[in-house]
Amino acid sequence: MDERVHPEVRHVAADIDTMEVRGAATIADAVARALRTQAEESDATDPEAFRAELRAAARALHETRPTAVSLPNALRYVLRGMSSTTVEGLRQDIVTSADDFCQRLDRAQADLGKVGANRLRDGDVIMTHCHSTDALACVEAAVEQGKHIEAIVKETRPRNQGHITAEELADMGVPVTLIVDSAARRYLNDVDHVLVGADAVAADGSVINKIGTSGLAVNARDRGTPIMVASQTLKLHPGTLTGHTVDIEMRDTEEIIDEERREEIGSPKVVNPAFDVTPPRYVDAIVTERGQFPPESIVTLMRELFGEGTSEPWAEP
Amino acid sequence: MDERVHPEVRHVAADIDTMEVRGAATIADAVARALRTQAEESDATDPEAFRAELRAAARALHETRPTAVSLPNALRYVLRGMSSTTVEGLRQDIVTSADDFCQRLDRAQADLGKVGANRLRDGDVIMTHCHSTDALACVEAAVEQGKHIEAIVKETRPRNQGHITAEELADMGVPVTLIVDSAARRYLNDVDHVLVGADAVAADGSVINKIGTSGLAVNARDRGTPIMVASQTLKLHPGTLTGHTVDIEMRDTEEIIDEERREEIGSPKVVNPAFDVTPPRYVDAIVTERGQFPPESIVTLMRELFGEGTSEPWAEP
Amino acid sequence: MDERVHPEVRHVAADIDTMEVRGAATIADAVARALRTQAEESDATDPEAFRAELRAAARALHETRPTAVSLPNALRYVLRGMSSTTVEGLRQDIVTSADDFCQRLDRAQADLGKVGANRLRDGDVIMTHCHSTDALACVEAAVEQGKHIEAIVKETRPRNQGHITAEELADMGVPVTLIVDSAARRYLNDVDHVLVGADAVAADGSVINKIGTSGLAVNARDRGTPIMVASQTLKLHPGTLTGHTVDIEMRDTEEIIDEERREEIGSPKVVNPAFDVTPPRYVDAIVTERGQFPPESIVTLMRELFGEGTSEPWAEP
Amino acid sequence: MDERVHPEVRHVAADIDTMEVRGAATIADAVARALRTQAEESDATDPEAFRAELRAAARALHETRPTAVSLPNALRYVLRGMSSTTVEGLRQDIVTSADDFCQRLDRAQADLGKVGANRLRDGDVIMTHCHSTDALACVEAAVEQGKHIEAIVKETRPRNQGHITAEELADMGVPVTLIVDSAARRYLNDVDHVLVGADAVAADGSVINKIGTSGLAVNARDRGTPIMVASQTLKLHPGTLTGHTVDIEMRDTEEIIDEERREEIGSPKVVNPAFDVTPPRYVDAIVTERGQFPPESIVTLMRELFGEGTSEPWAEP
Amino acid sequence: MDERVHPEVRHVAADIDTMEVRGAATIADAVARALRTQAEESDATDPEAFRAELRAAARALHETRPTAVSLPNALRYVLRGMSSTTVEGLRQDIVTSADDFCQRLDRAQADLGKVGANRLRDGDVIMTHCHSTDALACVEAAVEQGKHIEAIVKETRPRNQGHITAEELADMGVPVTLIVDSAARRYLNDVDHVLVGADAVAADGSVINKIGTSGLAVNARDRGTPIMVASQTLKLHPGTLTGHTVDIEMRDTEEIIDEERREEIGSPKVVNPAFDVTPPRYVDAIVTERGQFPPESIVTLMRELFGEGTSEPWAEP
Amino acid sequence: MDERVHPEVRHVAADIDTMEVRGAATIADAVARALRTQAEESDATDPEAFRAELRAAARALHETRPTAVSLPNALRYVLRGMSSTTVEGLRQDIVTSADDFCQRLDRAQADLGKVGANRLRDGDVIMTHCHSTDALACVEAAVEQGKHIEAIVKETRPRNQGHITAEELADMGVPVTLIVDSAARRYLNDVDHVLVGADAVAADGSVINKIGTSGLAVNARDRGTPIMVASQTLKLHPGTLTGHTVDIEMRDTEEIIDEERREEIGSPKVVNPAFDVTPPRYVDAIVTERGQFPPESIVTLMRELFGEGTSEPWAEP
Repeated sequence: MDERVHPEVRHVAADIDTMEVRGAATIADAVARALRTQAEESDATDPEAFRAELRAAARALHETRPTAVSLPNALRYVLRGMSSTTVEGLRQDIVTSADDFCQRLDRAQADLGKVGANRLRDGDVIMTHCHSTDALACVEAAVEQGKHIEAIVKETRPRNQGHITAEELADMGVPVTLIVDSAARRYLNDVDHVLVGADAVAADGSVINKIGTSGLAVNARDRGTPIMVASQTLKLHPGTLTGHTVDIEMRDTEEIIDEERREEIGSPKVVNPAFDVTPPRYVDAIVTERGQFPPESIVTLMRELFGEGTSEPWAEP
Repeated sequence: MDERVHPEVRHVAADIDTMEVRGAATIADAVARALRTQAEESDATDPEAFRAELRAAARALHETRPTAVSLPNALRYVLRGMSSTTVEGLRQDIVTSADDFCQRLDRAQADLGKVGANRLRDGDVIMTHCHSTDALACVEAAVEQGKHIEAIVKETRPRNQGHITAEELADMGVPVTLIVDSAARRYLNDVDHVLVGADAVAADGSVINKIGTSGLAVNARDRGTPIMVASQTLKLHPGTLTGHTVDIEMRDTEEIIDEERREEIGSPKVVNPAFDVTPPRYVDAIVTERGQFPPESIVTLMRELFGEGTSEPWAEP
Repeated sequence: MDERVHPEVRHVAADIDTMEVRGAATIADAVARALRTQAEESDATDPEAFRAELRAAARALHETRPTAVSLPNALRYVLRGMSSTTVEGLRQDIVTSADDFCQRLDRAQADLGKVGANRLRDGDVIMTHCHSTDALACVEAAVEQGKHIEAIVKETRPRNQGHITAEELADMGVPVTLIVDSAARRYLNDVDHVLVGADAVAADGSVINKIGTSGLAVNARDRGTPIMVASQTLKLHPGTLTGHTVDIEMRDTEEIIDEERREEIGSPKVVNPAFDVTPPRYVDAIVTERGQFPPESIVTLMRELFGEGTSEPWAEP
Repeated sequence: MDERVHPEVRHVAADIDTMEVRGAATIADAVARALRTQAEESDATDPEAFRAELRAAARALHETRPTAVSLPNALRYVLRGMSSTTVEGLRQDIVTSADDFCQRLDRAQADLGKVGANRLRDGDVIMTHCHSTDALACVEAAVEQGKHIEAIVKETRPRNQGHITAEELADMGVPVTLIVDSAARRYLNDVDHVLVGADAVAADGSVINKIGTSGLAVNARDRGTPIMVASQTLKLHPGTLTGHTVDIEMRDTEEIIDEERREEIGSPKVVNPAFDVTPPRYVDAIVTERGQFPPESIVTLMRELFGEGTSEPWAEP
Repeated sequence: MDERVHPEVRHVAADIDTMEVRGAATIADAVARALRTQAEESDATDPEAFRAELRAAARALHETRPTAVSLPNALRYVLRGMSSTTVEGLRQDIVTSADDFCQRLDRAQADLGKVGANRLRDGDVIMTHCHSTDALACVEAAVEQGKHIEAIVKETRPRNQGHITAEELADMGVPVTLIVDSAARRYLNDVDHVLVGADAVAADGSVINKIGTSGLAVNARDRGTPIMVASQTLKLHPGTLTGHTVDIEMRDTEEIIDEERREEIGSPKVVNPAFDVTPPRYVDAIVTERGQFPPESIVTLMRELFGEGTSEPWAEP
Repeated sequence: MDERVHPEVRHVAADIDTMEVRGAATIADAVARALRTQAEESDATDPEAFRAELRAAARALHETRPTAVSLPNALRYVLRGMSSTTVEGLRQDIVTSADDFCQRLDRAQADLGKVGANRLRDGDVIMTHCHSTDALACVEAAVEQGKHIEAIVKETRPRNQGHITAEELADMGVPVTLIVDSAARRYLNDVDHVLVGADAVAADGSVINKIGTSGLAVNARDRGTPIMVASQTLKLHPGTLTGHTVDIEMRDTEEIIDEERREEIGSPKVVNPAFDVTPPRYVDAIVTERGQFPPESIVTLMRELFGEGTSEPWAEP
């Protein structure tokens, strides 16, 4: 690793690598703070050296998880703050933008929740897929606004994250009805909003989320039920600004069927994609901490937050 | 029970009632044979008495399972055979139509399989939902025609009948890929036909089948993938000719989540409908032993087989 | 007028001409009875003369209203009954088919109502357009079955026939909500069935009904709300079997705006079509006294009732 | 060849084989007449022998072109006429049904034209694809009814049959606008009907017609322009009743690009399918000499004309 | 009321409250001028006091009509101009931004009209719903450009604002055809553009406009007829940036039916929503004085004009 | 011509006028350089005179081709660079923005190609229409990334530009299958992306491209095949920001049919529009050198690049 990288930054990188630090928001917070430390303790004497040192630190952090979304977003946000022409100015730029980033992160989910809650009316019934803290933040805020909300919760095979969703909704006092994933269409008529989270949002307005989201969205559109996606801007994927597609993780097949049973039924091939891609024409609104957006205009927000995405601010010039 | 009812008929009725005789085809076969016995051993001396006796036998059988589809269809078919004006003629009518019914039943699935197989081309990939012997008969016939067929099999929560389908397809030498229900849309692009069975087909062209069928069909239509339904005419529901809707069975919630786990996650309400209704506009063809039909014209076949459906031929005049 | 035409037939023809006899069912009944009289009192001595005399009577009746639907349908039904080879046989054929027709007519609306009622479930909300006794017969039968039905009634400009519908529904004890026609989409989400009548049904499955039906049906399809059309078979238009289209009546513009007001606002042209045409893809079921049909299969019922429609049985051979 | 086959039948079979007799209607007429000759000149002495002889003749004819549609339809129609129980009766059955078939054939296109013409209104603009005498018969009949019709004619690459259509329409006095196939969508807004023929119509309501029909139909539906298909019942494909699909002929690639030019541009692979398949949901009406039908109900007409299609009446029992 | 509020501001607030000042543009102009007066005559001595005083004035104005759209938009625009660090600078900021706002307002409708007119071609036929001066400005500008425009005008029950539209179009020399609302679909085929105004436009691209707009838009999309919405940016609703929905006013039921007649017909419940919500997928373009926008990108313009909408610039910090 | 216009600018204008300089990019480069020369050699002594002189030069260039897209875009880009308040500053502004423009232009197609290539995966099959260097740049970059791409190439009547596309793809080593335009739908099922260029992109998200693009896009959407449009920002049409529509060139009819043949077939009218308009709802992504965009958000990029488009920066103030 580049010797200019501060020990604290190395430490954070190691923790991410070993997954001691994990979760989109936790990682993002850690790397922003790491860059702040790098800047504060830098002894670079000219602006260019300072910039190079910060880039080296960012690269060290970036290499730990090149496919995550929140990590490079944190790096981009902090590094893009550098606009001064002196070392002192640049240092202050980094401190300011790192603090700004962390503060935004702190309040992003709560802010997002309020935006989403405003879309919900008293008495509304939502349908959920998988488990998303962003989506639940919307319901929680609605409940805090005094609205009565009910939920139809898809169990979300193979890992049944719907059970977690059911439990957390119950804790909020929201009446929950649990169904198998296949029963979604039958109950869509009773539903006012489909409400899901996102693993990533692409520049073409596509939403990458837990497998089953796209099929649900197509049915929701067919029934005229609005579908809202709750997604902090941390999930916006700047690599997609330049056309990159998001790799879909293929997970362990034992989540679907254990090996013994698989052999009993003739040893079929099993595939277990974690996510699917919902095109923007099936989504009504993406709710972020910056407000709500039609999916087709999320690219504008991405460019505002990350620039054109063509450069990697941590790359060697 | 009406004293005119023959002991053999009473026996069959009791077996159906206790579910010792079960399965759509088995029940249908048993009641046709029972009516034949009633006719053969009737000692009615005038045609009207003979007719009344047969209706009484039919009523006794019908009352055991008033909501099944195949049972009244068998009764209708056999009773509608009566056109003669003498007891002897009527007796022969019943024997002929009962035998005809049983013979048709015997070869219906094989005939249906050949029709469905003709729709499949060498190299086609099908997607299945739940387990349907009618649907599998189509694949089997295609394989016997020397076609290479591959299958993507949805597991079909909550009871995983997809496992049975996978196993039977593997036995036919069909390469199988098993997926969770939610992954269907992602793989529809690789699929040439969605192939499912039916629990009942209604006069308005709707298909009542395992929960999840309608959501799959909507996605198949959206992707331009044809959907074929394999259904013996025994599944056509004549009650729907007069507008009756098909009751959807609600099954035990423990199929979805066991009681202990349910309490752990806040005791949500659980609903477990066994079937859903797919409107005809999402189905390309219904394959029967009488040939294939667009769902919108199945009503004509129903009227041909069952008359206008307004009368119940076992009812007291 | 042809001298073979019986005075009673002439009398009926005159009453239809002067609109003393009017209404689709009343006219149909009158002409069937008139043909019966003609047959009963015919003194034709050979079968061909008898047939010619009956055709002449039919022509006399047909000429009074060449564009109505029920009148030629009654003539067709009765004349098609002639299959015997003797005068006495033919006379009896006419009597039988005329009586059969009148009896069917008598009970058709009640039969239709039961079929439509079977499609409605307890607690359903319907939306109506215009006023249709066939549609209301469905609701009435449902209420008699003990179902609770509610209705959202479109006022149906320009003649506000929705007011009559509202009143008749109120008389049945059905809670009614009255809206302007433009509010239909907003309330479709609360509706389980759109339920309308028909002025005519065409062989291509199109439904000709009060202006506004097609726009409502498109919105219902877009929202996933089923649309059912209640229409006695008397409304099926056999002329459309041979491709004929149904003329749309243009009504008095004063129904829309009175002349004085029209001049005040700059004397716009005003057009007031009475009906529009809803293609079959926007209709879920046509409910008749013979059962329910997808609109695409109504042609089969038309051929069954009226033959191929290529000949006019009252025409000179 | 079976020695029972009459020399005249052998002669007709040879002429079809060498394509001296060709064209759907011409072939159909020839084989019906051939069967009539076989019947008239049969010296079979018992009914079964007579039937076997006729089947042998039919087989001889059928083997000349096993994939055509009109040939087996003619055979089916004529053979299905046999219902008598004596040789003399059977002979008369064949004569009657062969004559009936030929007479129907003679007037089918004219009858069809009138049905199609009735769908067209004065002043309508049609769009055509390829060249179809059935479609042109509709326009011709409309012109004879005194209607002013205009036409937008797609040239229909690769063989430019649109030029023939343009010429024949011009001969009828119909103003023609010629466009390239790609310009169809741009002009659909000015069009009242898309009007095409069919090479075959399948039991699932699909229309097999010149390549480009399905893409045109999808655009017509998207624009709300009705699409009518003109097709004599001779084109209905009874093999599809049992699920068989229609093979799509792949034609010479030099129709698209000559060999020299192909080599100049890098020797791409060239594919030249003659037909494509339009699903019924994109077609408004199929116009036949028996009247018009929604595509979803054509199966009923097929069953009426050809039976269930499961047996080949010329096969050895 | 806060004592810092200038008497002139109080006067304006009172006039708005009593509806002596009404109409979206008139209110907006008045409050911008009122803030200018407050700024010019402020005797605040430090920047913070000046800002607080302006906020107090804005609050006083805002409270008169908390649900209007143009009023807070005017306040936002003017208050967001404050960027200086001295009282004098801030005063000038307010004067500049208030003047800028009023000037923009003055010419907004004319500018919008030109943009909309550019979308219309010579000979086009438009269909209108309700009465919108923004929409009419487009037609007027097109006429001034020398284009011949014709209009089909929906009467727009219950208040028949279509009559006003008809009259104003007639005054421009535009030929008008008046229809009932239900006849819209029948005439959409003759229409090149549906052209309507907006009461508010939401951040998710939805258009809130006179009841009936959404049903018309769905039909226009189904027929392939483009729909354009003419809406000054004053109608963009910044509260929706944070997910707030727009309350739909329920108006007096006597607009639909008078009390006497209502009782005659069984006293149905009557509901009279003033507006409905058209999702962006049914709208082709929103025409503003800043140019035209797809509805999905209007959020970007809203953020440009109003910021993120999360804060209310008149609120106490 | 205005005497302030530099001889070099006059020379460039003449070359554009005579089409010695042609092609969207070549023209754009030439006019940017011409403005640079005008600026460098200007002897204006005050800022306003300098600005006026540059506008005069721009007008001289603009008048040569008032309907092209790239020419005014180049003028806009360069002129909008002027922000200084001194002649020297303004001169430098022009030099900087002209150089910036030319550099961007130089690398735009390569940058765009990389963005487009990122959307393609190894093994993908594309379908092309017409010939577009922007579209081919995407394939070329994908091939350079080591991806295996195959192509189905529509010949693109009437001028067969598909042949050029086929040849250039073959040169890249891409396996090509050539089809007639009408065969597109049949092969869409085998296609992963439809990939086309654009002649212009409008502010409402519409894509103006070779005739046939819109019909292809509608079919692609119907089949669920994504459609990407490759278009440098030079093709964005700022005039459409203010609602202007793009004129569709009507080309020589002899491209479709030669005069002799036209007369042979009855002298039909022939129309030959060069382009058609694809609404944004049928396009998944527009790929530019600035990244990819949903078509609905391209208006934001246009405003960023060209301002509001309401003014023509070369017009006299």
